[in-house]
Amino acid sequence: MKVAIVGYGTAGMTAASYAKLTRRESEVEVFEKRPYAVYHPCSLPDAIAGLIPLDSVVEAAAAVPGVNVRTSTIVEEIDVDNRKLKARDLRRGEVFYRDYDVLILATGSRPFIPRSVNILDSSCVYTLRLVEDAKFIIEAAAKYNSAVVVGGSALGIETAYALRARGLNVTLVEYFQQLMPGKLDFEIAKIVAERLSSKGINLVLGEAAAEVSGAPGAKKIVTSTGRELEAGFVVFATGVKPNTDLAKQIGAEVGPTGGIKVDDHMRTSIEGVYAAGDAAEVKDLITGKPTLSLFASTALIMGRVAGINAVGGDSHIKGVLQNWVVNLEGFKFGGVGLTEEAAKKAGIDTLSVSVTATDKPQFYPDSESVTVKLVADGEGRLIGAQVAGGGNVVEKLNLLSVSIYKGVTVSDLPYLEFAYAPSLNEVVHPVYTAADALLRRLQRKTRIT
Amino acid sequence: MKVAIVGYGTAGMTAASYAKLTRRESEVEVFEKRPYAVYHPCSLPDAIAGLIPLDSVVEAAAAVPGVNVRTSTIVEEIDVDNRKLKARDLRRGEVFYRDYDVLILATGSRPFIPRSVNILDSSCVYTLRLVEDAKFIIEAAAKYNSAVVVGGSALGIETAYALRARGLNVTLVEYFQQLMPGKLDFEIAKIVAERLSSKGINLVLGEAAAEVSGAPGAKKIVTSTGRELEAGFVVFATGVKPNTDLAKQIGAEVGPTGGIKVDDHMRTSIEGVYAAGDAAEVKDLITGKPTLSLFASTALIMGRVAGINAVGGDSHIKGVLQNWVVNLEGFKFGGVGLTEEAAKKAGIDTLSVSVTATDKPQFYPDSESVTVKLVADGEGRLIGAQVAGGGNVVEKLNLLSVSIYKGVTVSDLPYLEFAYAPSLNEVVHPVYTAADALLRRLQRKTRIT
Repeated sequence: MKVAIVGYGTAGMTAASYAKLTRRESEVEVFEKRPYAVYHPCSLPDAIAGLIPLDSVVEAAAAVPGVNVRTSTIVEEIDVDNRKLKARDLRRGEVFYRDYDVLILATGSRPFIPRSVNILDSSCVYTLRLVEDAKFIIEAAAKYNSAVVVGGSALGIETAYALRARGLNVTLVEYFQQLMPGKLDFEIAKIVAERLSSKGINLVLGEAAAEVSGAPGAKKIVTSTGRELEAGFVVFATGVKPNTDLAKQIGAEVGPTGGIKVDDHMRTSIEGVYAAGDAAEVKDLITGKPTLSLFASTALIMGRVAGINAVGGDSHIKGVLQNWVVNLEGFKFGGVGLTEEAAKKAGIDTLSVSVTATDKPQFYPDSESVTVKLVADGEGRLIGAQVAGGGNVVEKLNLLSVSIYKGVTVSDLPYLEFAYAPSLNEVVHPVYTAADALLRRLQRKTRIT
Repeated sequence: MKVAIVGYGTAGMTAASYAKLTRRESEVEVFEKRPYAVYHPCSLPDAIAGLIPLDSVVEAAAAVPGVNVRTSTIVEEIDVDNRKLKARDLRRGEVFYRDYDVLILATGSRPFIPRSVNILDSSCVYTLRLVEDAKFIIEAAAKYNSAVVVGGSALGIETAYALRARGLNVTLVEYFQQLMPGKLDFEIAKIVAERLSSKGINLVLGEAAAEVSGAPGAKKIVTSTGRELEAGFVVFATGVKPNTDLAKQIGAEVGPTGGIKVDDHMRTSIEGVYAAGDAAEVKDLITGKPTLSLFASTALIMGRVAGINAVGGDSHIKGVLQNWVVNLEGFKFGGVGLTEEAAKKAGIDTLSVSVTATDKPQFYPDSESVTVKLVADGEGRLIGAQVAGGGNVVEKLNLLSVSIYKGVTVSDLPYLEFAYAPSLNEVVHPVYTAADALLRRLQRKTRIT
């Protein structure tokens, strides 16, 4: 069985390996545009910060027998009726054709700068997706002492923080009145904003970048309120869009989110064609509605499902929660499931609480505080959580992710058992404290209604 | 409503606070033998190691209105028919009487040295439970340059490690052929043993301490094989036994484990008397059989349940998994649910796997490896896990604890979502790797049977 995969990011790579694992005799060929097979895009801000060398972010493709990864290769056309594709080797300029039995589109996403931004001079205006982008930014950071980052997304925050860590004067511009709108509720975003401010990052919230002009080293950014910012260079982290060109070319349906429409087996609307990763829509586990999940963690799950099903296995995805985390030198923040605001927008009756607690007893020298926000629906079922601060943030996100996935209610939380050693954590786990506070709200509400 | 609580450890303290939270008008009086109300027994090894000052381990009782904590006070007799108790203030020697409506026995446990050990000279022979014990041990460690620790329990391992961290020559003696029998399977215990050996701790496994003699500074320990060990002092960490004297005095049933028998509301066999914490038995969630759970984490849950029910609330405990962890300066190990061996002993058909993986990408300077063991029953339902190594061990234990509690199967595990940031963890979570390996075993087994 011939499996063709377009794209070797997390989704493509995972699909390739599960297709092979599920059916040993399958022949998997992957077409990847990049000249290098494997790289770690999420590590690029760490390379910009100087925490790791940039070249460590690139890896050779692991040699898996029966999986052939072609780099510097683009798929130009697909004939879905005859299950045949036309590809071009960018190194040699050669065109070649391949038959396939099943095709997986793992075409990923690309950075997106809103059309409303008037870029009069695009010199020293960057986005950050590829290793080359990071290289440009590192070179600019060595030359200039200031930068403007546009977009209070995870990537925007990480990039601003990394550039600040290199000693630059950094301004972070976000159109909404808070960082990470849609991913963090206001009060948690505020904790993140305070952290960035305390590190000397200049935050401009509630203003869009309207115009970018000026030569390298003397960029001028005018915001929607007329504010003028000057900087050596500019990085746009204003989001990404699914790469759906190939999908559209073959007539595969694209959903309302802009991602390729798939069912719970990651099948597109075209027979024999699957999609996974950033390029595909996926169902939100809580709302049941299609969403874009632009995280490596969910690309991995989608890639697994697509890879298994493509070769005749049976795997289905119930939906995603989008469990994510950002680490700024030990200060971490992340979320899973719906924010309170997103839940309200989805018409869900919510109850929520935020508590701040020490993550280990204060008589340990590295005791830090952490804020946990829990969001429950009207019946007390956990539907979202956000965590920010020091200590073990990932631990909290992951146990809450499992809890949400398995339908844990606020009343269940106090009976979950958390491992305790005082040099690691508190016996009264912050999740217990949050659960108790939320239980009291739930009880009050029940009494009133 | 008058609530009398005997003992102010984790269970007693938690019961007191939830009794008060659940019914504001309740008057809670706690009788605690110790001269100090609150201390952190789990931190004593860290104080011995010098990581924290010993006096930081003691706290004043938080002043909760309506909760009266009497220290240096023992309960001598209880008249359950008339709901009256006789107590003695050890400072003044005064006896006084109290009526109560409901009584909670949170009498804890005490260190236990097996009768088979012939202690000819008990000078410089210690156990470790109270602050005073730690003080003696710290004094001995300042005076002598060697110690023998008897018992490869969590406490024995922590104490041996702490004394070694102070520069002493340390021998750890364990009767079984492995450390932490019953709590770790052999191959995980081996990882812990190797860690201790690499730190210069001399391990004597498969031998019991038979005889202890000699003056302070010149102790002689003879093991069951006739081996002679010499050391400045000796610490026994051979386990603890529930304190059931009061329970027996009032005729409350004691179960086969030696703990006070309770139902799922933490009610003893005597009307109006509850028990919680180390003193009480509790149901194992997997086997459904009574067990002793001698951890602060489960004492907290039991105390909560007892406190809520004692004042007329309704809370019940389904059972415990005993999620625990030990931290030796960043090398951590722990477990939750049943070990493979314990499951087999309980007549459960098991499938298990251990995988060792990096906990974050190797190009991060602090990347470490971690071993995850998963134990499933014949149907693939997760019933236990053990984790040892560097990285985020608590995160894995806690997400697996929730998974086991909620009946997650091995086939569910790949769909759980874990937050990813490369400076914190791997996108291919070690739990996924373990789950895939276990799935393959499960599929092989299904094909065969």
